[in-house]
Amino acid sequence: MAKRNLYLTNIPVEEALAKYLAALGDHLVPGFEEIPVTESLDRVTRQAVYARCCSPLYNAAAMDGIAVIAAATAGARENNPVTLVHGRDFVVTDTGDPIYPPYDAVIMAEDIVELAADTVQIREAAVAWQYIRPIGEDIVTGEMILPGRHRIRPIDIGVLLAGGITRIEVYTKPAVAIFPTGTEIVEPDIFSRESSIPGPIIESNTRMFEAQTVQGGGAPTRFAPIPDDYDLIREKIAKAAAEFDMVIVNAGSSAGTGDFTVHVLRELGEVIVHGVAMKPGKPVILAMVNNKPVIGIPGYPVSAYLAWEKFAAPVLGILAGRVIDSEAATVEAVIAKRIVSSLKHREYVRVKVGRVDGKLVASPLARGAGAAMSLVRADGFCVIDQNSEGIEAGAAARVELYRSLSEIERTVVSIGSHDLILDVIADMMAGGNTFLASAHVGSMAGLMALLHGECHIAPTHLLNGETGEYNVSYINEIFKETPMALIKGVGRIQGLIIPKENPLGITGVADLVSCRYINRQRGAGTRFFLDFCLKQKGIAPEQINGYDHEAATHMAVAAAVESGNADAGMGISSAAAALGLGFIALGNEEYDFAVHPRFLELPQVEAFIACLKSEAFHRRLTELGGYTREHCGEIVRIQGISSCQK
Amino acid sequence: MAKRNLYLTNIPVEEALAKYLAALGDHLVPGFEEIPVTESLDRVTRQAVYARCCSPLYNAAAMDGIAVIAAATAGARENNPVTLVHGRDFVVTDTGDPIYPPYDAVIMAEDIVELAADTVQIREAAVAWQYIRPIGEDIVTGEMILPGRHRIRPIDIGVLLAGGITRIEVYTKPAVAIFPTGTEIVEPDIFSRESSIPGPIIESNTRMFEAQTVQGGGAPTRFAPIPDDYDLIREKIAKAAAEFDMVIVNAGSSAGTGDFTVHVLRELGEVIVHGVAMKPGKPVILAMVNNKPVIGIPGYPVSAYLAWEKFAAPVLGILAGRVIDSEAATVEAVIAKRIVSSLKHREYVRVKVGRVDGKLVASPLARGAGAAMSLVRADGFCVIDQNSEGIEAGAAARVELYRSLSEIERTVVSIGSHDLILDVIADMMAGGNTFLASAHVGSMAGLMALLHGECHIAPTHLLNGETGEYNVSYINEIFKETPMALIKGVGRIQGLIIPKENPLGITGVADLVSCRYINRQRGAGTRFFLDFCLKQKGIAPEQINGYDHEAATHMAVAAAVESGNADAGMGISSAAAALGLGFIALGNEEYDFAVHPRFLELPQVEAFIACLKSEAFHRRLTELGGYTREHCGEIVRIQGISSCQK
Repeated sequence: MAKRNLYLTNIPVEEALAKYLAALGDHLVPGFEEIPVTESLDRVTRQAVYARCCSPLYNAAAMDGIAVIAAATAGARENNPVTLVHGRDFVVTDTGDPIYPPYDAVIMAEDIVELAADTVQIREAAVAWQYIRPIGEDIVTGEMILPGRHRIRPIDIGVLLAGGITRIEVYTKPAVAIFPTGTEIVEPDIFSRESSIPGPIIESNTRMFEAQTVQGGGAPTRFAPIPDDYDLIREKIAKAAAEFDMVIVNAGSSAGTGDFTVHVLRELGEVIVHGVAMKPGKPVILAMVNNKPVIGIPGYPVSAYLAWEKFAAPVLGILAGRVIDSEAATVEAVIAKRIVSSLKHREYVRVKVGRVDGKLVASPLARGAGAAMSLVRADGFCVIDQNSEGIEAGAAARVELYRSLSEIERTVVSIGSHDLILDVIADMMAGGNTFLASAHVGSMAGLMALLHGECHIAPTHLLNGETGEYNVSYINEIFKETPMALIKGVGRIQGLIIPKENPLGITGVADLVSCRYINRQRGAGTRFFLDFCLKQKGIAPEQINGYDHEAATHMAVAAAVESGNADAGMGISSAAAALGLGFIALGNEEYDFAVHPRFLELPQVEAFIACLKSEAFHRRLTELGGYTREHCGEIVRIQGISSCQK
Repeated sequence: MAKRNLYLTNIPVEEALAKYLAALGDHLVPGFEEIPVTESLDRVTRQAVYARCCSPLYNAAAMDGIAVIAAATAGARENNPVTLVHGRDFVVTDTGDPIYPPYDAVIMAEDIVELAADTVQIREAAVAWQYIRPIGEDIVTGEMILPGRHRIRPIDIGVLLAGGITRIEVYTKPAVAIFPTGTEIVEPDIFSRESSIPGPIIESNTRMFEAQTVQGGGAPTRFAPIPDDYDLIREKIAKAAAEFDMVIVNAGSSAGTGDFTVHVLRELGEVIVHGVAMKPGKPVILAMVNNKPVIGIPGYPVSAYLAWEKFAAPVLGILAGRVIDSEAATVEAVIAKRIVSSLKHREYVRVKVGRVDGKLVASPLARGAGAAMSLVRADGFCVIDQNSEGIEAGAAARVELYRSLSEIERTVVSIGSHDLILDVIADMMAGGNTFLASAHVGSMAGLMALLHGECHIAPTHLLNGETGEYNVSYINEIFKETPMALIKGVGRIQGLIIPKENPLGITGVADLVSCRYINRQRGAGTRFFLDFCLKQKGIAPEQINGYDHEAATHMAVAAAVESGNADAGMGISSAAAALGLGFIALGNEEYDFAVHPRFLELPQVEAFIACLKSEAFHRRLTELGGYTREHCGEIVRIQGISSCQK
């Protein structure tokens, strides 16, 4: 077998960065250039900027009115008006007009009475310098307008120009070369399902890096993917390290047989760090070639994102002359679900964050390094330190936020069962000023989250097998005496998702004993429904091949069936329809939203209910297919069972 | 006299905006276009985006190792190793490689022992699907990747491409026409002090609008200044209202004789609002021409900024399809200095914000509509509602922040006497991770702010006329028993700033009785020094012409002398040197920083002291001239006077 780089180091994040910056040392210096002020938005000043002229440039009227000689107005009072003659005692002046000697005060238009074409009367004396902006009132020649290392805002551009500055020295945008590598990597626009490459991966990470470079103040040049060819990779990196300020190589940074990057970098220069105690993102390479930073970033999207943020971003920031705000937007939040972590590394767990009953609650999302969608959905990272084995549910933890707190405050937090309509509602609410954030953990786990004050609403579809009633009995069981409410959602058709052609001729639950099934996770309402169906047919779970093969959403079940990983799975008809699969209807169920009555008046929950009731939403349900909507958005009060009923 | 628009309306801000948006109604609809995903950073999705393919595209190895048939590994245990043969029982696989049937599990490289070139041994059975990322684990075809109205981030670009999306529908960038108007307006690059135009104003506002348009998601086209010519303005606006999505006219929105804008807009279309109950920014014009928003923005820089933020920005936001975050970054802060306001309008007062002893403190800056530098220096606006007559010192008030809280937390708040070295220190600290924010209120007011817990340090230079000692006796007087400290600053030369040629032949304080003097504000150490000098010479303040003519900084005094507004003023030699003026030295004084000892260990105060002690700072002092620095950065403890000494 080919050589592997099995032994990565395991250095803490800060230590790795410090070691790298120390090695780069004086080579990490931003360049500078002179540019027009009018093109300097978001650029960073190299040094302090001093005004070249005063503003205003002269004594200027601060009001519309007349310019007068203060001494000539002395004695004017309500019962002793003074008459002024144009050209001798006053001139008409507008705001901003220059005031020349002998005039030394302005009287507002509102305070004068016009007697004739060139005569006015005043009833109050003017004090010298009143309503005059003296030369330099705003900016004095030689005054510092901006310090060095200042990121230029729109207001700064205005004031610089007013201070006589038209050109300014700023740091240059660092030129960043970005290389995708890997024989299996295919450009998105030439990718098709018919691609002849075995196991293609659509190239996407380096396009994210491009955008991150722009946001970080750099100028990216992204190259076409390089196949896994040692000499070719070496040649390209050597050239880039000569021509660019910084080089990014993705991926080949791990320990696989095709991971050449570290060997190439050792040959061309020096590898300072290979392997950092962080998860995801461990196999990052921090190297120096031709005294330039060259960073090897792992291929999994979440690893790539984190390796960029923790290493490439700070290096780019220094090269761009930006002040690095290392403590940006960190909050304390209560963790909704226990997170177990290893002492081997610091772990960054994606979380949704919401404000429920005044406290910030963070719900962990999917943790895999490949779960890029979890990054899209997340509001931030919960950071679990290396010396921690995890965080218990209900404990407080540090969360690095990347969504604004004010948006989070206006978000409905939904934890519970998954349905495609949640995405539709989130889409529809995004047009307004409130938001929906949902975590998919199944009906039971959602009700428990609601009980523990971790969410506003809990989507649920739990069938009482004895009464045939949905949701209410479970809520009573969990919330006891507490009065609760249900926001009625949709009726939906639950059944078996099967391949379009149905090669195994599956006709119902009885046939599941002779095929490969894919199940939903424990606590999911859909799994309850399967168990109910199996019980009715007298089939034991052990008879089902794949009962322990779990997926977390209806769409994931549908994908497993479509790909042939499974022959059948339970799910909703809209998921089958979305992938054009076969479907065997087994029952209509009620998919509702459990809620504490006190949340019903929150603006974001009101917006959520308004959306459920809207015509536009009902049109979208029709498009999805498989839903009924008689009671959509109605509120059902659940009084709770009294202690004596218990 | 020419016609004036004396009667502006006085509608509250929100009401004016609501009225305007209602009038624009359905005309205010964003356009859309399809663009490559790779160019979509910061653009806004028009509608929800659904995945066109799964990610991963196939069952993929999640680890480097070997792909096996789970069933064939059954029974492997620590004391019962199982041997696997390459090609029959396993194939080598790297992370991301596709896993094809019959293989259905992956064993990590770390968990296998190589026996021979094509034989390995395992000591643990594999569970079906272990270390395999099933097709669609991250993204399922048909799944919603992004909702509509979503601003695209780098991670979104990566996930869109991975989900098979290469082009995306986004809202177009609204085309915004921006017109400077006014005969007195001169382009910055053709401006010179020798300009023949009487009372020129350097055009700067529309360059700020350009940058604000870019930040707001629009595409600005800024035109050359139009002179005050009714027909020309009408023609240009009419053309722009046909070709652009939005038109900005600056200025001519007020009630002056040259203010045509409102008449032009009435002729061309409809003026919805002229005059809003806000200060600064009252004379804003909200109009509609050709069903397009046309906004007349007043000329004072601070008015211009606020009128943009409160009216142009939200209209642009709607046209750009952006969700408007109206509640962004508002905090409660304690007001350091009483603010009096009128019931006529809501007032936006620029403030510096700092964190002192755990509480946020807001110190008001200059309030004039022309004080653009106060916008540059400010951290936000303190909002004084229309129904409030002001805010007492020590009361809490709402502050709209536009600097990040985390930066504010790392800032030394300095309130007190002004010196040019404060700007130099701020400049030098900006390279690091801590900041200096200073408000200039004079020595006495600074010590009072320190007493009330509104700042960390108070720059002060107060002479005890009896002992000749600086600062300590005043601190003892104010802080009584409380132990305090002084961070020693610089020695500086105080004296009379006079014109370079000294036409009046001023030689000292005695000559002030026969010239126009400009004084500093009450409580300023420099005014104390003047009073001390006058007393020594037996001159009464009433004998000084201009004793009540006040300026707030050394540079403002120097500017008054340079412009001829005054013949002499007291100030520091570095201010005279900055403007090339004459100077008569009258004394050396000690400019120090009073501080509570408990603040000395704050990282930002430590950075401030380190800066004072640095070689680089001493070089800058030499460049400025007029300073001595023997004790710069030294800490002097002041024990406080005990109760019995009092």
